[in-house]
Amino acid sequence: DAYKLLVLAGDGIGPEVMREVARIVHWMSAHRGLKLDITEELVGAASLAVHGVPIRDEVIELARQSDAVLFGSVGDPAWSHVSFDKRPEVAILKLRKELELFANLRPAKLFDALIDASALKPEVVRGLDLMIVRETVGGIYFGEPRGIETLFDGSRRGINTEVYTTSEIERVARVAFDLARKRDNRVCSVEKCNVMESGLLWKEVVTDIHKREYPDVQLSHMLADNCAMQLVRDPNQFDVIVTGNLFGDILSDLASMLTGSLGMLPSATLAPLRADGKRNALYEPIHGSAPDIAGKGIANPLAQILSFAMLLRYSLNRAEDADLIETAVSNVLASGLRTGDIMSPGMARVGTEMMGQAVLRE
Amino acid sequence: DAYKLLVLAGDGIGPEVMREVARIVHWMSAHRGLKLDITEELVGAASLAVHGVPIRDEVIELARQSDAVLFGSVGDPAWSHVSFDKRPEVAILKLRKELELFANLRPAKLFDALIDASALKPEVVRGLDLMIVRETVGGIYFGEPRGIETLFDGSRRGINTEVYTTSEIERVARVAFDLARKRDNRVCSVEKCNVMESGLLWKEVVTDIHKREYPDVQLSHMLADNCAMQLVRDPNQFDVIVTGNLFGDILSDLASMLTGSLGMLPSATLAPLRADGKRNALYEPIHGSAPDIAGKGIANPLAQILSFAMLLRYSLNRAEDADLIETAVSNVLASGLRTGDIMSPGMARVGTEMMGQAVLRE
Ligand SMILES: CC(C)[C@H](C(=O)O)[C@@H](O)C(=O)O
Ligand SMILES: CC(C)[C@H](C(=O)O)[C@@H](O)C(=O)O
Repeated sequence: DAYKLLVLAGDGIGPEVMREVARIVHWMSAHRGLKLDITEELVGAASLAVHGVPIRDEVIELARQSDAVLFGSVGDPAWSHVSFDKRPEVAILKLRKELELFANLRPAKLFDALIDASALKPEVVRGLDLMIVRETVGGIYFGEPRGIETLFDGSRRGINTEVYTTSEIERVARVAFDLARKRDNRVCSVEKCNVMESGLLWKEVVTDIHKREYPDVQLSHMLADNCAMQLVRDPNQFDVIVTGNLFGDILSDLASMLTGSLGMLPSATLAPLRADGKRNALYEPIHGSAPDIAGKGIANPLAQILSFAMLLRYSLNRAEDADLIETAVSNVLASGLRTGDIMSPGMARVGTEMMGQAVLRE
Repeated sequence: DAYKLLVLAGDGIGPEVMREVARIVHWMSAHRGLKLDITEELVGAASLAVHGVPIRDEVIELARQSDAVLFGSVGDPAWSHVSFDKRPEVAILKLRKELELFANLRPAKLFDALIDASALKPEVVRGLDLMIVRETVGGIYFGEPRGIETLFDGSRRGINTEVYTTSEIERVARVAFDLARKRDNRVCSVEKCNVMESGLLWKEVVTDIHKREYPDVQLSHMLADNCAMQLVRDPNQFDVIVTGNLFGDILSDLASMLTGSLGMLPSATLAPLRADGKRNALYEPIHGSAPDIAGKGIANPLAQILSFAMLLRYSLNRAEDADLIETAVSNVLASGLRTGDIMSPGMARVGTEMMGQAVLRE
């Protein structure tokens, strides 16, 4: 039986890098017996241009019924002034919320061959391999009330609400603790409990779950401002970081930039297990739509390709195929090929397509 | 006539580093005709222990009537589990709110002699000199409703509210634009307008003020997650960054860590000008109370000393005295003295007191 895969390339460099994944899918169908039933749909600015909405309800329904979603990226300056409901970004926010994709796993792993691409000193960043587990369906991204009100004197007020419930915190904490057990067994929970009650509750609930269910895992707590500093000072002190939606957004982007290879990092976002033992899941690169380089054929396709490898491993249970792709990527890097974002002296600069082809050859 | 100065050393390393400022004050009274009428009060855990509150109303009143407040740092793990109202941190939050200290100026400047102390490569961080202007009396730090509610089924909900009004955004934007005019004339405004309406309003209001009052200044906009990345990738792209309370907390700590000299960086927080042409102002180091090294005599006193220099310059109009201190600090660093936090090979390690004495000698 074929797996149902929904492909949402989105905006900016999304379609370009997705094209390189398509080549690999094609090859795997021919040579590895991979059977995929693929549907492609528009999201983000691409969907706005055709359908007038950032994502159609039918597309969300398709996503729900798929074994996995492979997502590119959304965001387009041309649409950013239209209206808050018609931001391209609504596509990913709605997908997360409607499919209850609550746990976003963002690895920040240094590729040894790319150590020179980091802004950090080699001795600070060497061996970096941390995982940020970010809550993605709660917090200030979705809390009510929200909006912009006009006051009686004509001035305005912008409002957003951060809300976290016990159960929202518990389930994402469990994902972090489970992951830590398969790694270095350490979790650092990050909030701002000295200023925010939602952070105070976060800390209490994580402490509680730890005591009751994961006493074997090492747990520490850190304030978000301190965590940003510690990520720069000594990122190797971390194993798994678990945090809310907004802090996770900032800290995971920061962590991935430390590796100097934002264009290389994939992510997975998981929904709760259903009664049938399966779960919805979405895979996307950590980088955004990068409108400044879109259409130039110079974007790095490796994060999208590695997102597909994660999808094979976690949603389709095809670890061997995932290994094949990950090894091919390593070999290509070792051979000295580099897109502009990870370029360093003495290496060979290639574009999106040549990089994709090279992975395929391997 | 003597200037009225309120000294609030606070917790952890606060009192130790403040002692080194006291020596300088003493010397300046004797040799530079500096007349200060100094009051010292307890704040934070120190005040909790004696008075049962993190800051007394009388102390806030004293602060209001002072020409300037020199603040140390607050925070103590021993008090963090007591109750949300009895956090040591309430002291600084109340001072900011009650005195309307709305604009926190946080320079992130690299001291050339300390370039090796940064985790970033020298070529990335060389010459770094940026200023973060953080709004400090609004946003999610103070918005209502807030708190932890228990629901009917015994589960709980933590809530905080981010609120920004037109006028709150306007006044902090003006501070940033005014500062930029005296620097490299560039402001980058940071929010998360693709997710939060309060960020959308922020962006609109900053754009508006720029068009109406500061068209000569170069203005750009950046999302907070991207800003965290860009600060690591290429911090020299920034001149002045203006942002809200929560993003400012995280990004300014990050920026100061880039310099590798957190223990060196002062900050100023300004209230609006009053009718008499004066304003309330508070000066504090960027570092916190550092409970792990408190009482050991190894803390770096330079951020506190440089905060006092800022106070002389901006609140007391004594630029010459400020210059004296800043030059002394430079000379001490050039002579090779280092506290543990900024230590590098070949330098001489000293403690808090020896560092303070060395500045005094210079
Ligand atoms: C596109 C945007 C809404 C999104 C977010 O803020 O979550 C992005 O920055 C991310 O991290 O996936
Ligand atoms: C002590 C704490 C309340 C404070 C803050 O979060 O504002 C501190 O981190 C700061 O940046 O001054």
